Amino acid sequence: MATGEILVINPNSNPEVTAGLDAAMAPLRLEGGPAIRCMTLEEGPYGIESQADAAAVVLPLRRVVTSSEASAFVIACYSDPGLMVCREATTKPVFGIAESGTLAALQRGDRFGVVAILERSIPGHLRTLRQQGLAARLAGERALELTVAELANEDRTWDKLLRTALALRDEDRANAIVLGCAGMSRYRARLEQALGIAVIDPTQAAAVAALGTVLLQNAR
Amino acid sequence: MATGEILVINPNSNPEVTAGLDAAMAPLRLEGGPAIRCMTLEEGPYGIESQADAAAVVLPLRRVVTSSEASAFVIACYSDPGLMVCREATTKPVFGIAESGTLAALQRGDRFGVVAILERSIPGHLRTLRQQGLAARLAGERALELTVAELANEDRTWDKLLRTALALRDEDRANAIVLGCAGMSRYRARLEQALGIAVIDPTQAAAVAALGTVLLQNAR
Amino acid sequence: MATGEILVINPNSNPEVTAGLDAAMAPLRLEGGPAIRCMTLEEGPYGIESQADAAAVVLPLRRVVTSSEASAFVIACYSDPGLMVCREATTKPVFGIAESGTLAALQRGDRFGVVAILERSIPGHLRTLRQQGLAARLAGERALELTVAELANEDRTWDKLLRTALALRDEDRANAIVLGCAGMSRYRARLEQALGIAVIDPTQAAAVAALGTVLLQNAR
Amino acid sequence: MATGEILVINPNSNPEVTAGLDAAMAPLRLEGGPAIRCMTLEEGPYGIESQADAAAVVLPLRRVVTSSEASAFVIACYSDPGLMVCREATTKPVFGIAESGTLAALQRGDRFGVVAILERSIPGHLRTLRQQGLAARLAGERALELTVAELANEDRTWDKLLRTALALRDEDRANAIVLGCAGMSRYRARLEQALGIAVIDPTQAAAVAALGTVLLQNAR
Amino acid sequence: MATGEILVINPNSNPEVTAGLDAAMAPLRLEGGPAIRCMTLEEGPYGIESQADAAAVVLPLRRVVTSSEASAFVIACYSDPGLMVCREATTKPVFGIAESGTLAALQRGDRFGVVAILERSIPGHLRTLRQQGLAARLAGERALELTVAELANEDRTWDKLLRTALALRDEDRANAIVLGCAGMSRYRARLEQALGIAVIDPTQAAAVAALGTVLLQNAR
Amino acid sequence: MATGEILVINPNSNPEVTAGLDAAMAPLRLEGGPAIRCMTLEEGPYGIESQADAAAVVLPLRRVVTSSEASAFVIACYSDPGLMVCREATTKPVFGIAESGTLAALQRGDRFGVVAILERSIPGHLRTLRQQGLAARLAGERALELTVAELANEDRTWDKLLRTALALRDEDRANAIVLGCAGMSRYRARLEQALGIAVIDPTQAAAVAALGTVLLQNAR
Repeated sequence: MATGEILVINPNSNPEVTAGLDAAMAPLRLEGGPAIRCMTLEEGPYGIESQADAAAVVLPLRRVVTSSEASAFVIACYSDPGLMVCREATTKPVFGIAESGTLAALQRGDRFGVVAILERSIPGHLRTLRQQGLAARLAGERALELTVAELANEDRTWDKLLRTALALRDEDRANAIVLGCAGMSRYRARLEQALGIAVIDPTQAAAVAALGTVLLQNAR
Repeated sequence: MATGEILVINPNSNPEVTAGLDAAMAPLRLEGGPAIRCMTLEEGPYGIESQADAAAVVLPLRRVVTSSEASAFVIACYSDPGLMVCREATTKPVFGIAESGTLAALQRGDRFGVVAILERSIPGHLRTLRQQGLAARLAGERALELTVAELANEDRTWDKLLRTALALRDEDRANAIVLGCAGMSRYRARLEQALGIAVIDPTQAAAVAALGTVLLQNAR
Repeated sequence: MATGEILVINPNSNPEVTAGLDAAMAPLRLEGGPAIRCMTLEEGPYGIESQADAAAVVLPLRRVVTSSEASAFVIACYSDPGLMVCREATTKPVFGIAESGTLAALQRGDRFGVVAILERSIPGHLRTLRQQGLAARLAGERALELTVAELANEDRTWDKLLRTALALRDEDRANAIVLGCAGMSRYRARLEQALGIAVIDPTQAAAVAALGTVLLQNAR
Repeated sequence: MATGEILVINPNSNPEVTAGLDAAMAPLRLEGGPAIRCMTLEEGPYGIESQADAAAVVLPLRRVVTSSEASAFVIACYSDPGLMVCREATTKPVFGIAESGTLAALQRGDRFGVVAILERSIPGHLRTLRQQGLAARLAGERALELTVAELANEDRTWDKLLRTALALRDEDRANAIVLGCAGMSRYRARLEQALGIAVIDPTQAAAVAALGTVLLQNAR
Repeated sequence: MATGEILVINPNSNPEVTAGLDAAMAPLRLEGGPAIRCMTLEEGPYGIESQADAAAVVLPLRRVVTSSEASAFVIACYSDPGLMVCREATTKPVFGIAESGTLAALQRGDRFGVVAILERSIPGHLRTLRQQGLAARLAGERALELTVAELANEDRTWDKLLRTALALRDEDRANAIVLGCAGMSRYRARLEQALGIAVIDPTQAAAVAALGTVLLQNAR
Repeated sequence: MATGEILVINPNSNPEVTAGLDAAMAPLRLEGGPAIRCMTLEEGPYGIESQADAAAVVLPLRRVVTSSEASAFVIACYSDPGLMVCREATTKPVFGIAESGTLAALQRGDRFGVVAILERSIPGHLRTLRQQGLAARLAGERALELTVAELANEDRTWDKLLRTALALRDEDRANAIVLGCAGMSRYRARLEQALGIAVIDPTQAAAVAALGTVLLQNAR
């Protein structure tokens, strides 16, 4: 680990999600750069679908962070579970994908829109934005409202994603889009091209931020 | 330019500043990653010390951005001159160091402090934060108030920098610090170690953001 | 439980704190009103002194809330641990003392001041106020900075409390004061008299809010 | 008046409104608790329908507050007329129902919606929320727009109330509702049951806050 | 009244204050422009020193506004008593000096400072700024804290005024100053010259705004 | 120039626009008042339609301001190009029509609406409002979306203008309207009459503010 490692933690126990994260990290793995490793949190629920689910992974995440030798961490769930607790536990940098995704969007457009999977996640996202002091830049958040079965159908998902993002751009005046979950990386580039405005995959955004801290730290 | 190039533009015509930027970029140059090139804007004034100076470089910066073959741009002056105009002129990503520095700090601490060189730059910085909708996270901004002669003296600068940053941390409750100019990179790591909280060099922060966009774009 | 019960949960395992809460509840226990019972969370740490400590009690609090037959709940720790998770878990009203204390203060003065025990709790309180969208009304927060030994000395505590509250009133322009912890109830009335402005004990404020919901619910 | 009295003042001179307030207070009258008395302000207009009407009752309200022996006061009109003037005139607690209703809602949901009687009251409510620094939590406000004749028809009112509250919940993402006037108490419980989220009657909310201050004051 | 009249109403009954207002209006009286008349509100208290005093003049001001043939009105008291009620009562423009003074300052500097006569007026001013949604631009407010006797001494007043304004400029980073009362017009120009930043007399600012509306209305 | 001169600068090189500005100034030219002169910025583009266009006129505007003997300046383009740079360059007052128009509206209604010519100007206007700290008072902004050919047709323009302003008033709850460009003065009075709420022409608003500063300065 000459150049450090970035540990991307999938806080749910679904290995397919971790595999998707791993694929999304490929472009950020560089010769001479830090390793980027993705892991599944075994103690996590199969999906994080409630605040209770998020609470359940906080201390397990903290244990990973304090016992790992990695140089930086990414918590790969769009509710940023355990972010503050993990930051308290270590002086190493810890990134949450919702936070990093939003902040990346702010560098690409004046007002950002968020595509959520489910309407019922949106109130929590709005509260987080208020906590972060970033709500003034939100153009809007809209949900795909797809069932799990529908999400498995890529055409159906793309169609709904495109229409939702267009509404954010054209009705809500967003000029940058954040994909509001950990598993839509594979649509990012295509959606960016279709919309003509920046589209941010939040896990990639957090990994980029982590990459920066590790490279700069190594240079000390 | 197989993997793209990041162009870091020093909008003033002082080549020593450009040399300093170049040194600060070293840790971000990776085998297999994009080149990072630093250039001096010949049309720029020797130093950007007023809003008129900043206005004078807007269209020259735009010309660089529209005529360059680089994949991403960093405008390396803490007043972010021409940032909106350059973004309007290209679909390629353009980063301003004040914006990127602030957003990087928000991922490392809840309230950030800024070290400015001169008190008279602070009102402009405060107005920018209001425009960005980020003022709620500012702990405070304090100036070194060093003359050019004093800035040349590294011990004197370090001493003042440390005392200013300590005041931001201990009196203003900042838990992350942004170095509020393009030329203090060499103090970053030392200051971070002395304070025990994250210290952000804004040019490095912007270059990391640029690095991410280029890597992800190449992956399409 | 003809008229319902309010359960006040001390999330730390220190029974003396619970006894103090119990004493603070006495004025709110009325003939014909709901019972107010105080309990110690056995799973809790001896004191909640970090975000990790707060995280550790979230799911135990949730278990209490979902398994109890009480009609309303008060989480009696000034970091409001588990408040959102508990609200998600039940349709019964759940109150956090920091939130209720702040909102009670807003009904007694235009700008409120908070007395914290320790300076290091203040950043978390400020973040919570931002999340609640209430930061615009904060006059200031100041810490007693007393050691545990000093806190045991009532004269010493009173002296420091009075001077801190006076600074909030006279320097920060607060016209209502919130006692920013679960254990200072016994100073409330005396401090209010000394200052001539409203002083809020947050546990009492939360219990009053709970009392209201139970009485109104019974009336249905 | 062994245990103090709460005086609920209807600032208009319509005794039927006072009778409705009186009925709404029933659940809050407890053995051993303070008396809750409702009075009609004889100098008031028959209805408070303009800012001029509200202004006309300010000094009469002040006279009631300064001459009464009650321990706490509730001004029962959703424009909170005279609230600041009455607070200036006495050190006893004075509550306004709009303020108390909003603050009670903030303890039950993250974003609150308001049901107004008339669209033309809404601008004033929005201004008040801005003054209170609470606008960030507003999901939306919608008016019933019922004539006096229609309001007398309970079925018609319920129907409109339900549809309005559903729009606040489902379109504006409110998760708590405030009844934005002094006379809809009798629909509170039914609406809460129909919606599945908290519904606040503001006069009851203010009376609960008053109840708390009196009980705690007696305990000194 | 070929070209309309502006009525400047001194809401207190002190004719010396009215005489001072009248002198401050001299530069705004133009050949061919509207007359500017200053009147004393006979029903007003000798000085407006409390919120009750302000409340007492609301309906008398409304009567003046609705019965006068003037084309525009200025309410010349820095608490803007009755401003909303008077605006409701007429479609003619009505200006309050606190509001107009603040908005004039915002056109001359990025952050404004306010010089109050008394510290105890400041909380009310802060609440008004919050209501107006303008608090983000406030650099600070500081009081002269001069007794009536001291205010009669011009040298003493000037000395205190200068020191207070310098503190607003140099410590609070104000780059425009509002004189926070109706009676300091005669110091405006001198203070502006001493400070080198704009100083706004609020009554003059309101009269200028009124002048504009009358001139434009005549042009219809 | 006994009484000073106000210079209204049209930053584009279209002399017809300047002629329209000149006509709009007529009501503000008074016997004994300052002259109001309108000039075309020869270096300006034919229309300011982008941020690059706005940037191109900043230094030319600065040159006009620093070399002119006028007492006050109005920059007559709704993107306020060069406003901060010109203010930095002179101690004389400089007004931008977007800023002055907004601030005039705030004195006539609680929430203002803006009529833009083109939808694509709106994001820039929203960013400016955020910078000014005034976004909390915005009811909404809506665009006419008329082509140049359609704008030449007065009936067609009036029809669209009226419908747009009605939507701002009735759907967005605006109670004052700002015409969001430099060339709609001739519709102001008619629109105000049709709507029954104040309508602000921003160039006139800025000229009124300039008029005030010149008159008061002469009086020194």
